[in-house]
Amino acid sequence: MSQSEVRVSWQALQEFTKEVFVRVGMPPEDAQTEAEVLIWANLRGVDSHGVLRIPWYVSNVDRGIMNPRPNIRVLKETPATLVIEADQAFGPVVTVFAMRRAMEKAKEVGLGWAFIRNHTHQGAMGYYSQLAANNDMAGLVFVCSPPNMAPHGARAAGISNNPITIAVPAKRHRVLFLDMATSVAARGKIWLAVDKGVPIPEGWALDKDGNPTTDPNQAAIFLPVAGPKGSGLALMFECLGSVMIGNPLLEPVLMGRKAQSLPPPKQPEVKGSHPDHIPRPIQNSVVAAIDIGTFTDVESYKEHIDNLIDGLKALPKAEGVAEIFVPGEPEERTFAERSRHGIPLPEGTIRNLRSIAERFNLELPSGL
Amino acid sequence: MSQSEVRVSWQALQEFTKEVFVRVGMPPEDAQTEAEVLIWANLRGVDSHGVLRIPWYVSNVDRGIMNPRPNIRVLKETPATLVIEADQAFGPVVTVFAMRRAMEKAKEVGLGWAFIRNHTHQGAMGYYSQLAANNDMAGLVFVCSPPNMAPHGARAAGISNNPITIAVPAKRHRVLFLDMATSVAARGKIWLAVDKGVPIPEGWALDKDGNPTTDPNQAAIFLPVAGPKGSGLALMFECLGSVMIGNPLLEPVLMGRKAQSLPPPKQPEVKGSHPDHIPRPIQNSVVAAIDIGTFTDVESYKEHIDNLIDGLKALPKAEGVAEIFVPGEPEERTFAERSRHGIPLPEGTIRNLRSIAERFNLELPSGL
Repeated sequence: MSQSEVRVSWQALQEFTKEVFVRVGMPPEDAQTEAEVLIWANLRGVDSHGVLRIPWYVSNVDRGIMNPRPNIRVLKETPATLVIEADQAFGPVVTVFAMRRAMEKAKEVGLGWAFIRNHTHQGAMGYYSQLAANNDMAGLVFVCSPPNMAPHGARAAGISNNPITIAVPAKRHRVLFLDMATSVAARGKIWLAVDKGVPIPEGWALDKDGNPTTDPNQAAIFLPVAGPKGSGLALMFECLGSVMIGNPLLEPVLMGRKAQSLPPPKQPEVKGSHPDHIPRPIQNSVVAAIDIGTFTDVESYKEHIDNLIDGLKALPKAEGVAEIFVPGEPEERTFAERSRHGIPLPEGTIRNLRSIAERFNLELPSGL
Repeated sequence: MSQSEVRVSWQALQEFTKEVFVRVGMPPEDAQTEAEVLIWANLRGVDSHGVLRIPWYVSNVDRGIMNPRPNIRVLKETPATLVIEADQAFGPVVTVFAMRRAMEKAKEVGLGWAFIRNHTHQGAMGYYSQLAANNDMAGLVFVCSPPNMAPHGARAAGISNNPITIAVPAKRHRVLFLDMATSVAARGKIWLAVDKGVPIPEGWALDKDGNPTTDPNQAAIFLPVAGPKGSGLALMFECLGSVMIGNPLLEPVLMGRKAQSLPPPKQPEVKGSHPDHIPRPIQNSVVAAIDIGTFTDVESYKEHIDNLIDGLKALPKAEGVAEIFVPGEPEERTFAERSRHGIPLPEGTIRNLRSIAERFNLELPSGL
């Protein structure tokens, strides 16, 4: 970390974040949800999905892309499923709503499966699956977005690096959860390479003309993880999600041969300019909950997960590996550390938050 | 293909296969299902999951591992879910049953989600997801097995290379479907390397002591695809599947520190000896169907999938790529060719089928 690093208490940062979103027009309860999701990401060290996004979100509200007062409606409903129109809601607001409704259904019939149409950026996806896990359920969420990844064999964007997250509760251990993109590298890692001025490994991305590149500044199209496997998963998520609710996100672009690319990988903290090349960053999601108690004893389920984690961590380690981590475990350690010692923010982010504070006449958290 | 290759009509091979399973004690209808699943794999070129398995299955029946007359029971049921006890049924018999029941529920409440406990080998998983797609539904199936893969960072088996398959229907095109293992390479590819006497690439497998190996004869432990991603997915499937129905498959082995390894990669056609090192190759599955008509217009759904396939295939191709394939497409071509011209069988498989025919006093398909 740089010498200029400043630590801020998560509580103060969350309160500030909430106030920003109240000022852009969100109801206080929704602003609270949005703030919690962003701070959760920062606490876990996933800074690319934390308060760094605030200027982009504010600008998206200015431009009518993100809707602070959406008319969220349930369009269809069965005992196990629902289709939710998000009306360009902030992702966290409608996704938390969807998971709560899915959990209600899971309580009744064992499983709840919610489709969300037309929402905007959701922040760190793991937040929603762990919401289910914290309620003695398994959570499963995947997302569909406009093309930003080359399907296996292609040199142009045709699919999206759709992430998936799955979470289950443990007893002694924290929630066990996976949160992964279907691309080799997440967008944040490319931004980080720009920040550090280092090349990205071969196989991460193509430039806008479809040529392989190791220059993060030229990276314009993601490459799928594990070739046909990541590519296939990403494609099937679109088929299970977007197309199922009549809101396809890939096909219209493919049919229109419209060029799509990653946001220009500028250093976001410094410039405050976030991905805004995609006219309407609209997404669809599937948000599901499975009620453990419907199928087995909840306490014994959690003990099994504890034992499974212990058993995996006790396996003989591969050469050069100091410790075997289960999914989510490294971030959990960062969470513990930052909860105690505060969230470190780089200068660029602080500068951006200052200008946001100025605009809305808000007091910055102490230290900023 | 070798000069000694013999082609046999799929109808005759299927009839023969059915008769074998009738002779081992299966009801004719179940024997028919088993035969259809095996022949379907052969038609698609997935020979590792075709009639090559017959001797292993017969030997598993002899040893009481695969149950030709199982008492398949629904243990729990809600409007959207069910838990099925398979009683060591042949995988295809209970998985087709589960998918049919899941589809009935999907017809009623939009989605049906079936857990199966204690089944045996299922053949090619894609068969079950495409069953849903052929009924205007999306199908999703994943499987949980005892440890055969090293979790990311470990040098011993602790998870399984749990496969997942997802299928959706198209209109002009055939069913679009993904069928992938969470290991770098499927078992069949390692067997193939043994057959051909060639090394396997680095990163596919470890030997029984946990050392990386390129000798397919020494390959004993799978490696996960995409490191933490394949590893994480495989682990979460066990948590969503096995543990959810109180039948964990990883934890007991991890807790007992019991050694687990891949079947010795012998040339299966020649020796007729199939993986039987695992005392009870018991598996659990999740089998789900989503009814398209509940959420959108079915015809328009299929047209979207057609357009999506066309759009992806028309993208500019990566260097050295002659054609962009969507998931399942290469196998679909083999299917068309073999449906017309018959299924090629290698000598070893033919020899094994002859000895099976002798044992059960059955006539072999013409040409064998």
